[in-house]
Amino acid sequence: MSLVVVGSVAYDGVETPHGRVDRMLGGAATYISLASSFFTKTRIVAVVGDDFAEEDTTLLSDRGIDLEGLERVPGKTFFWAGKYSDDMNDRVTLTTELNVFADFDPKLPASYRREPYLLLGNIQPALQRSVREQMNGLRLAGGDTMNFWIKDFRDELLATIRDWDFLLINDSEARMLSGCENLRKAANAILDMGPHTLVIKRGEYGAMLFRHDSYFIVPGYLLEDVFDPTGAGDCFAGGFIGYLAEQGFDLEAGHISRGDLSRAVIYGSVMGSFCCEKFGVERFRTLTRAEIDARFEEFRTFTSF
Amino acid sequence: MSLVVVGSVAYDGVETPHGRVDRMLGGAATYISLASSFFTKTRIVAVVGDDFAEEDTTLLSDRGIDLEGLERVPGKTFFWAGKYSDDMNDRVTLTTELNVFADFDPKLPASYRREPYLLLGNIQPALQRSVREQMNGLRLAGGDTMNFWIKDFRDELLATIRDWDFLLINDSEARMLSGCENLRKAANAILDMGPHTLVIKRGEYGAMLFRHDSYFIVPGYLLEDVFDPTGAGDCFAGGFIGYLAEQGFDLEAGHISRGDLSRAVIYGSVMGSFCCEKFGVERFRTLTRAEIDARFEEFRTFTSF
Repeated sequence: MSLVVVGSVAYDGVETPHGRVDRMLGGAATYISLASSFFTKTRIVAVVGDDFAEEDTTLLSDRGIDLEGLERVPGKTFFWAGKYSDDMNDRVTLTTELNVFADFDPKLPASYRREPYLLLGNIQPALQRSVREQMNGLRLAGGDTMNFWIKDFRDELLATIRDWDFLLINDSEARMLSGCENLRKAANAILDMGPHTLVIKRGEYGAMLFRHDSYFIVPGYLLEDVFDPTGAGDCFAGGFIGYLAEQGFDLEAGHISRGDLSRAVIYGSVMGSFCCEKFGVERFRTLTRAEIDARFEEFRTFTSF
Repeated sequence: MSLVVVGSVAYDGVETPHGRVDRMLGGAATYISLASSFFTKTRIVAVVGDDFAEEDTTLLSDRGIDLEGLERVPGKTFFWAGKYSDDMNDRVTLTTELNVFADFDPKLPASYRREPYLLLGNIQPALQRSVREQMNGLRLAGGDTMNFWIKDFRDELLATIRDWDFLLINDSEARMLSGCENLRKAANAILDMGPHTLVIKRGEYGAMLFRHDSYFIVPGYLLEDVFDPTGAGDCFAGGFIGYLAEQGFDLEAGHISRGDLSRAVIYGSVMGSFCCEKFGVERFRTLTRAEIDARFEEFRTFTSF
C-alpha cells in the first residue's frame, strides 16, 4: 500500500527565537515523506540540483523512502530562508531562490503509477493535476495548497481540487478559498468544491476535519519548547495520509469512518508536534514508531472527559 | 450547595459585525450568575444605581438568583461600551463609566457567609480578598482577573490568588502573570502561586485546564454565527463553577478528579458558546438545561476519536 508524495525538496535557512541554521534539508516533499515513512512505504517525486548532498539522500533512503522519482538536474537546489516571530505564529520570508524547482515538471516513474495513495504537496495546481492524471488505480488522493495559488490561480486550483478526496489547508487559506470568515461556513463551501474531506490546520491551536455529515476538532499538542515550526504542516499531512495508507483505507469505496479519519488527524498532529521539537528534519533521525504511538495515547489522555 | 458570585452588574453598549445595541444588561456577575443558575442556587453580590430597571431585576430573579446581596445606591449603574473587530477576536472599549461601581465595597448578607462555593468576578484584588475573608466554610473558591490588575496591582493580586483553589484567565493574561510565553511553562509557574487548578480560556480556540499532575485541553465550539462574544468568558466561569457546585465537589478534600474538572470545563465551554448566539444576555431568556446537556454531548461527539 505505497504512497506517492510530490512536492519540493529544498534547502532552508531558518531563524527562530531558539537559534539559527543557515542551510539544512527542507521542502514540503521531504517533510511529508519523512513523516509518512513511519506508517507506509513512501515514493517521492521531486527535483534537486547537483549540489544536493549525499548525506541528505541517505537520510531519506535510510527511512525506506523510494528515491527513483527524485530527479537530479544541473543547477542549484531550491533554497528558502525565513525568520519566525517571537511567538512563532508568524514568519517572514527572507529569500526564495527557486533554482531547479522553477522548471519542475513532475514525471512519475512507471513503478509509481499504480500506487493507491497520493499526496500532492503545495506546488502549482496545474502540476498537481498532471500528476494525478498520470496515476491509475488511486484509492485516496489529496493535497495542500497556499494563498498564492488561491488568489492568483483560482480557476486552475478549483479545476484541480475538484477531483481530490481531501484538501489540507490552514484556517486563513480556508477563509480565502471560501470567502467565508466563519470556519463552519467556510468548510461547507469548500466541501461543495469537490473534496469530500477537508482538514483545516490551525498551527498551535490544532486541527479540524470536516465532511458533509460530521466534523471533528482536536486541540494542538502543548510542547514545552517549540524550536522550529518549519515543516510541521507538511508532517501533519504525512502522518494523516500515512496512517490512512497503512490501514489500507479507501474513501471512494465508502468504507472509511469519521473515527478512521479522526485518528488520521491525530497521527497528523503527532507528527507535526515532533517536527517542532528540533530544527529542520533533525527530530526524524531518532524518532521511533513507539514514540509516535505513545504521543497518540497522550492525545487521548489530555482530550478525554 | 449554593454559590456566591461577586462582580459587576452593568449596562453595556455593544457593536459587532452583526449589529449594535446601545444599552443592555451586562456585567461579569450578571453573566456568571445567569450561567451558574442552570446548575445551582446562585447568590449575587454587586452594586447598581437607581436607574437599574425592574425588568432586569426580574430576569435575574426569574432564574432563581438570590438578589439580597444586590445593593442599590443613588447614582447611575456602571456603563461600558465597546466595539468588536470583524473577526470578533479583538475589541476596543469606547466608554467606561464606573458610576456607582467606583465605590463598590462588597458586603455579604449574613445568609451568604456560610455558603460553600465562591466565584470572584474580575474586580480589584483587594476587594476579592475581603469577600473571601468574609466567608466561613468554603469548599471551593476562585475567580477571574485581568491585565490591569496583573500589571499595576501585582503584589495585591498575588496575595489574593494565593488562597484560591482555581484561577480562570485567558492566554494573554496567563503569559503576563507568569512571564512565560509558552503556556505549559506559564501554567506551571501560575500553579506555584497558589491555585491548585488553573483554567486558561482561549476564546474561539477553547480552553485548557492545568493541575500540577495533569492537564486537559478542549477546542472551542464551532458556532455558525457569533453574534456577540460579550460575557462569554464569564459564562464559561459560571458553567464551570456551577457544575462543580451542583456535583457538590470539594477540591480541598481532594475528592475531585481530573475527569470532574474536565467536565466542568466542558460545561463552561457550553455556556460560553450559548452566550455568543445572541446579543447580551438574550440567549438566557429561553435556554434550557436540556439544550445545555445536548451541547455537552455534542462536545463528546466532535472531540472523540
